[in-house]
Amino acid sequence: MKSLALLKRYDWQKLQQFCTEVFIRAGVDKNHANTVADSLIQADLRGVDSHGVVRTAIYLERIERNMMNPFAEPEIEMEQGPTVLLNGNNNFGAVVGSKALDIALEKAKEQGIAVVGVKESNHFGTGAFYALKAIEKNMILLLMSNASQTMPPTGGKRPFIGTNPLAVGVPAGKELPFVLDMATSVVARGKIIVAAQKGSDIPLGWAIDKDGNPTTDADAALQGSVLPVGGPKGYAISMFIDILAGVLTGAGYGKYVNNMYENWNEPQNVGHFFIAIDIERFMPLDLFKERMDRYIQEIKAEPKADGVNEILIPGEIEHRLVIERKKTGLELPEKVENELEAIGRRYSLKLSDALIDSCYSNQKKEAVN
Amino acid sequence: MKSLALLKRYDWQKLQQFCTEVFIRAGVDKNHANTVADSLIQADLRGVDSHGVVRTAIYLERIERNMMNPFAEPEIEMEQGPTVLLNGNNNFGAVVGSKALDIALEKAKEQGIAVVGVKESNHFGTGAFYALKAIEKNMILLLMSNASQTMPPTGGKRPFIGTNPLAVGVPAGKELPFVLDMATSVVARGKIIVAAQKGSDIPLGWAIDKDGNPTTDADAALQGSVLPVGGPKGYAISMFIDILAGVLTGAGYGKYVNNMYENWNEPQNVGHFFIAIDIERFMPLDLFKERMDRYIQEIKAEPKADGVNEILIPGEIEHRLVIERKKTGLELPEKVENELEAIGRRYSLKLSDALIDSCYSNQKKEAVN
Ligand SMILES: NC(=O)c1ccc[n+]([C@@H]2O[C@H](COP(=O)([O-])OP(=O)(O)OC[C@H]3O[C@@H](n4cnc5c(N)ncnc54)[C@H](O)[C@@H]3O)[C@@H](O)[C@H]2O)c1
Ligand SMILES: NC(=O)c1ccc[n+]([C@@H]2O[C@H](COP(=O)([O-])OP(=O)(O)OC[C@H]3O[C@@H](n4cnc5c(N)ncnc54)[C@H](O)[C@@H]3O)[C@@H](O)[C@H]2O)c1
Repeated sequence: MKSLALLKRYDWQKLQQFCTEVFIRAGVDKNHANTVADSLIQADLRGVDSHGVVRTAIYLERIERNMMNPFAEPEIEMEQGPTVLLNGNNNFGAVVGSKALDIALEKAKEQGIAVVGVKESNHFGTGAFYALKAIEKNMILLLMSNASQTMPPTGGKRPFIGTNPLAVGVPAGKELPFVLDMATSVVARGKIIVAAQKGSDIPLGWAIDKDGNPTTDADAALQGSVLPVGGPKGYAISMFIDILAGVLTGAGYGKYVNNMYENWNEPQNVGHFFIAIDIERFMPLDLFKERMDRYIQEIKAEPKADGVNEILIPGEIEHRLVIERKKTGLELPEKVENELEAIGRRYSLKLSDALIDSCYSNQKKEAVN
Repeated sequence: MKSLALLKRYDWQKLQQFCTEVFIRAGVDKNHANTVADSLIQADLRGVDSHGVVRTAIYLERIERNMMNPFAEPEIEMEQGPTVLLNGNNNFGAVVGSKALDIALEKAKEQGIAVVGVKESNHFGTGAFYALKAIEKNMILLLMSNASQTMPPTGGKRPFIGTNPLAVGVPAGKELPFVLDMATSVVARGKIIVAAQKGSDIPLGWAIDKDGNPTTDADAALQGSVLPVGGPKGYAISMFIDILAGVLTGAGYGKYVNNMYENWNEPQNVGHFFIAIDIERFMPLDLFKERMDRYIQEIKAEPKADGVNEILIPGEIEHRLVIERKKTGLELPEKVENELEAIGRRYSLKLSDALIDSCYSNQKKEAVN
């Protein structure tokens, strides 16, 4: 039975098709369904399972309960030269974010730099999803998003700011591109959820309990707050993201960014902030790529500390996972599988159709035996 | 004698005059001398003593040994719409940085956003110096600089990247502005120097020794490397700063940013990167300031963890120090005092002229008694 479980892996393209089709049958426009499913699968492929197909159910529920509106297109509210204010009109975060990205890249090509502030959006998935698309177009992208409250300010004892992600994408030449994509917490809340599910402890410094005390108990941590990375530094970074993505754009900030799982009265009103930069305004693209390659090669050639096999650049771990997972398929936790199966039943779709062939046939064989 | 030592404090304005005059007598143009002295004194006032008048001696030495050129003006090399590449021509970092700031603010007022990449600069002091000037003009500023090698990449054992500072300034209304100004290391190297001078240990996690092993020995740490804040996250942030400020601008990066104290063959070739944003491209300034005030008030009103008196916003600690130090004067470590006295003698200036009157007269009284 163990080998069976191990073999139960999903083909990423078929699983993406499954999600796309689910969204389409829920009434979402085909392009948007595609974008959202793409963003979820990319997260799973990159090992950011917390932002992958696990979110399908909550996205659907928010549509059904009128908390998210996949029918209203994002609209430009202000636009002048290189600056744009985009109203997401409460569409999917990935749809709004992709629109913001397209505008930022187009304007930056024209103007050299562009900034797109975004309000009335929703959870937009991982930052790398956008950073990688900018890299494909040879552009540098800095992007950030605020998120609902999960972290205290330094000295506080309950959540006030989100784990507001910061991402930066930079193309290289022969080397892998630079992809920084991080939550501003010590670790993603998802890691604490996993520890809680396993019943294991978490290291001191990851979180505080609901009374503001340091804790190693994962359950207590989930009832409390995740801590910002590096103490006041992470707090300050998360705050400036909230200011740019929230205060400045007219989106929510602090407690005005609603929790997607808990608030069923109002849209989330998440804000994003995208800055795209055209490399050629500073030097020829080829020269820049040569310099990036050299930089990366020099870092990777640095002497390693004891017990370290390799020095990695940001994005490298995730890049390797993508290659591996495209080959071996995606594993889903039972809970997610059950959820997706139930969703499939509602829309007359079979999740098992997305299983990798070999494993599907193995299963059939075992079922026959 | 103890009370005498305690009373030996310098008036910030007179000390600034002293430094300005030193630079002028060393041949520096009056405006530039002023800018550099201003940046040093502001650092001392804000409690960032490591970037204050302690740097006077090394700046002078780099001029005298032709490693820095205070006579060559920074020049725009490329300029198109909102993007500018500035060649610092190896002038003082503070002069070049101030020039970059002026250009960024002017262009951003015109274009809504502006980016100024800077190469061939030097150590530019603290990020807050520039952030505060942008705030005065009601602009948002993101700025960064690379620095010579002091931190290893994650997994490395010797310095490869700098503690590359990141600063963000945002104006508020009635509340204090938001001023994030941080090194990308766990703590500034200056704190380890202080510990070494006192012979005290440092906490585990601040640094590694020259073989890459974690250490609590301050001396061993100084021979080794400071660690990035938050592990791979700080490494990745420092690296993207090096990419924007160094790789993209044509400045040095990694080992090509020369150490100001150790390399006497070549200029430092530090790079900076300034992004200024006009708030009014997103919402009326008054509304933005109201939103900032509310945000800050809400954070400060959060319930506090046990033992915490107050929740602070980034920049608040330093703001209070400025008020206090303007009143009580600046204290200088004996070593710095001796250095400045020696410099004064060379240029026929008396450092003691910058002592606070009351304390000067107290000294005289004590001397008389
Ligand atoms: N949409 C939202 O509201 C939201 C909120 C928080 C986080 N997120 C997403 O969650 C994801 C996970 O964030 P995280 O902080 O847990 O990521 P993480 O800590 O796993 O990685 C952070 C960054 O560090 C790099 N990295 C990690 N180890 C490294 C090493 N040894 N050497 C070099 N680089 C290394 C990674 O490549 C990555 O760029 C991100 O995709 C983020 O966008 C989204
Ligand atoms: N020019 C260079 O090459 C260079 C290199 C490194 C650092 N620096 C400068 O060194 C200075 C010191 O950096 P640092 O990282 O040691 O600073 P720090 O750790 O003292 O402070 C970092 C930031 O966190 C904020 N902060 C600290 N405690 C807080 C709290 N309890 N609540 C809210 N906010 C809090 C501060 O206001 C500041 O904005 C900076 O001015 C930086 O620009 C310059």
